[in-house]
Amino acid sequence: MLSLERLHVVLVSPRNPLNIGAAARAMANFGFRHLVVVAPYEEHWREAKSAVGASELLQNARRAESLQGAVADCTLVIGTGTLAHRRPEQTVIPLPELTPFIDVEFARGGRVALVFGPEKRGLTREDLALCHMLVEIPTDARQPSMNLGQAVAVCLYELAARRKTGPHPSDKNKGVARMGHPANPAEERADAASMRDPACARDLDLLAAVVAETMQAANYSPAAMKKANDHDLRLLLRRLAFTRSDARRILGLFRRILWRLKRRTGLKD
Amino acid sequence: MLSLERLHVVLVSPRNPLNIGAAARAMANFGFRHLVVVAPYEEHWREAKSAVGASELLQNARRAESLQGAVADCTLVIGTGTLAHRRPEQTVIPLPELTPFIDVEFARGGRVALVFGPEKRGLTREDLALCHMLVEIPTDARQPSMNLGQAVAVCLYELAARRKTGPHPSDKNKGVARMGHPANPAEERADAASMRDPACARDLDLLAAVVAETMQAANYSPAAMKKANDHDLRLLLRRLAFTRSDARRILGLFRRILWRLKRRTGLKD
Repeated sequence: MLSLERLHVVLVSPRNPLNIGAAARAMANFGFRHLVVVAPYEEHWREAKSAVGASELLQNARRAESLQGAVADCTLVIGTGTLAHRRPEQTVIPLPELTPFIDVEFARGGRVALVFGPEKRGLTREDLALCHMLVEIPTDARQPSMNLGQAVAVCLYELAARRKTGPHPSDKNKGVARMGHPANPAEERADAASMRDPACARDLDLLAAVVAETMQAANYSPAAMKKANDHDLRLLLRRLAFTRSDARRILGLFRRILWRLKRRTGLKD
Repeated sequence: MLSLERLHVVLVSPRNPLNIGAAARAMANFGFRHLVVVAPYEEHWREAKSAVGASELLQNARRAESLQGAVADCTLVIGTGTLAHRRPEQTVIPLPELTPFIDVEFARGGRVALVFGPEKRGLTREDLALCHMLVEIPTDARQPSMNLGQAVAVCLYELAARRKTGPHPSDKNKGVARMGHPANPAEERADAASMRDPACARDLDLLAAVVAETMQAANYSPAAMKKANDHDLRLLLRRLAFTRSDARRILGLFRRILWRLKRRTGLKD
């Protein structure tokens, strides 16, 4: 269960400290440890009484000022929510099918963020643009909106508890004889990729900034279109599943292009 | 999804109305309708604000004075809880493996109760003796105790949402060509039993009362042992999976024995 250490639960602007405490309690119930709270409304959320058996987890939670900062170290950022009234731009995975994606990410050495939006409105379009994929809890169409603490509990149950008795148990006993070999099919599938070092959100943000600057410099992206183009660029970069060296190489290319563009503009002037 | 109608969520002596509301909200999220609240502590539980999108469900909830009364019509009563500190006398099923048992019960025309205990102490030994089987949510051994509303959400997610995308989807399209044939393996397994009419809790309670009276009359069960024997008898009757006609036949037998015993005692006196 060590890999659960590499999953971070991120709550974006939660309004009610009781829900933060409830999320912490569910994390303790299912063996998760790393909570990040982005720009909470209430200052005294660390004292939430609802964090039964999880007060230490809540004390150790990280506070971040932005979602971008919260997920900077993560290689796979998964947004949650009921997407009934949206047309999301990323892949949407039903919760019961999420586990293999996370297993693959863990097998390639990545860190995963599971992001929950505020109680009333959920994640914004800007928040979603920072996600590689979205997960949807299959709910009744007449009442899709879940309580935050319950949504966290359901997601973590699916990711942690099911795999203990689920269809792909990782057989620790056999592990001794098969040292170095993946113990389950998901890890096997990721085996080819496991030598790779996936790009984290920070790498992608840096690359996006340089590409955006290049687009400006090349007059590809007029000021009026900048926001929309930046949004599309974020989504594109997250779809491509770069390794760190991919990201570095492309970054180098764009820096070079940018330098040339600026020099040429300089010559023209 | 019609079969979800035949699952009743039963909350025994919940202390906090917010938890009752949260349970109702989760029921609405996952398409369940029938809530029974047994001897709640607070009178004003029907107004719980936490029942977002489920106020009608809460208004229509049934109130019962005892668990026995709450589950009288049910043919399969499933107790929930973390059983870390107990040695339950019934079969314990991990939540991820529960669905087939419920599918089988639905296929044989039964009604299922899923019973949750009060917040602090959970179901008592007496409550558990009214259950045919127990279900356990696999939680971390260091923090097994879940919030009531979150436990309800996790169980209902497992029963409802998973089956929509799970490993045994009931293929409605194929159903046209295979009319009358069960659409999934669980139903197939239950097919032989589907003509049977399972005994409900009320049938078993009546039988238990007559058997207990017979034990008394036969001096099998001295007064000091009555409580323990009644407890064991309850568990035994629930293990045996009687149909209604089984229950009626055995009831007739015991009534006959009882009549003979009493007559003989009468002759002796």
